[in-house]
Amino acid sequence: MNSVRKVPDIVIGRLPIYLRALQVMAAEGREVTSSQELGERLGISPAQIRKDLSYFGNFGKQGMGYRIPDLIHRLKQILKVDRTWDMILIGAGNLGHALAQYQGFTPRGFRLVAIFDNDPEKIGRPIGLHTIRDVGEVPNFVREHGIQIAMIAVPASAAQQVADLCVEAGIRAILSYAPIHLKIPPGVLVQYIDPAIHLQQMTYYMNHGT
Amino acid sequence: MNSVRKVPDIVIGRLPIYLRALQVMAAEGREVTSSQELGERLGISPAQIRKDLSYFGNFGKQGMGYRIPDLIHRLKQILKVDRTWDMILIGAGNLGHALAQYQGFTPRGFRLVAIFDNDPEKIGRPIGLHTIRDVGEVPNFVREHGIQIAMIAVPASAAQQVADLCVEAGIRAILSYAPIHLKIPPGVLVQYIDPAIHLQQMTYYMNHGT
Repeated sequence: MNSVRKVPDIVIGRLPIYLRALQVMAAEGREVTSSQELGERLGISPAQIRKDLSYFGNFGKQGMGYRIPDLIHRLKQILKVDRTWDMILIGAGNLGHALAQYQGFTPRGFRLVAIFDNDPEKIGRPIGLHTIRDVGEVPNFVREHGIQIAMIAVPASAAQQVADLCVEAGIRAILSYAPIHLKIPPGVLVQYIDPAIHLQQMTYYMNHGT
Repeated sequence: MNSVRKVPDIVIGRLPIYLRALQVMAAEGREVTSSQELGERLGISPAQIRKDLSYFGNFGKQGMGYRIPDLIHRLKQILKVDRTWDMILIGAGNLGHALAQYQGFTPRGFRLVAIFDNDPEKIGRPIGLHTIRDVGEVPNFVREHGIQIAMIAVPASAAQQVADLCVEAGIRAILSYAPIHLKIPPGVLVQYIDPAIHLQQMTYYMNHGT
């Protein structure tokens, strides 16, 4: 265990991908895997996987591979998803409705607790298991409930303003679906859901066709 | 230029991120940047950026940095988004509607040309600039128009069946929003839009709090 060594961001970026693959294997009823097998599933070299995991201690036994439940447990601890994080969502349009019904958050450590919009036509209406709240209530809600994570699913034109509101309210991590780059002060984390990034990762490997 | 050297997948994965950052800089009216500045914006070391780009030839002049328009042009060529790729979308629910209206595809090299669903209530209805088509028309449409890319925005329970349909029809790249792992034959590319991966990349850096 080596908690003083600074782990590169790029390594941290791969841990959730390892965790997802391991959880898929666990769902398949598997107990043990290897860096070789993980690497084949993920298109990452086994040496890279072993090196990434070595930042956090000694997992597999030489020649024995990794015990899947143990590695899942440890990765959840490292990524701090051995607890559930409450999140808010701002934007109750089509995307907001899709996120309100998304089944993928809970098994991965996240719970959507409130949804906000600025449209008087929408405020007060049901969305999934929630009722759409006025975006003006964000600051109080965030402070009262100690919320640290916000998802932004508003049009590009409103995204910066909403991000500013979140930051002022004390939000510490933003997941944005808006196709613009947000200006966020240091100390606040931001990640983007950007389908074009994924599409471009595939076109590299494709032939120019019709 | 060294077209025989195999470029690691992980390097290819970073090129769209460089391209996006450069396009943001270009939109800000900037002409020149450096691996140092790019690295600071992206949280990637300047040495890594220089090494990644060096797979594709010699870009910046020593001490002069990169000319942004030239690097954008070259990255678009490498990622094959110096053309426009037609895509289809399967799933006309809330997420499908959001994707139908998404403004971020066209500037990045992609065009949504048709949207399909299996719900008789939806088929024939307008969605964005399109009319929802019967999912049964996917094979003919894909063949007739030489479509290579499909986005899947159907419930998890239907995603594998839809993916199989796409693969049989000749689709070569799938972007899936469904929170399940798809079984896809070799030779077909797949990427997942997975908000939990992004959320977990942030919780690592956060304190366990309320």
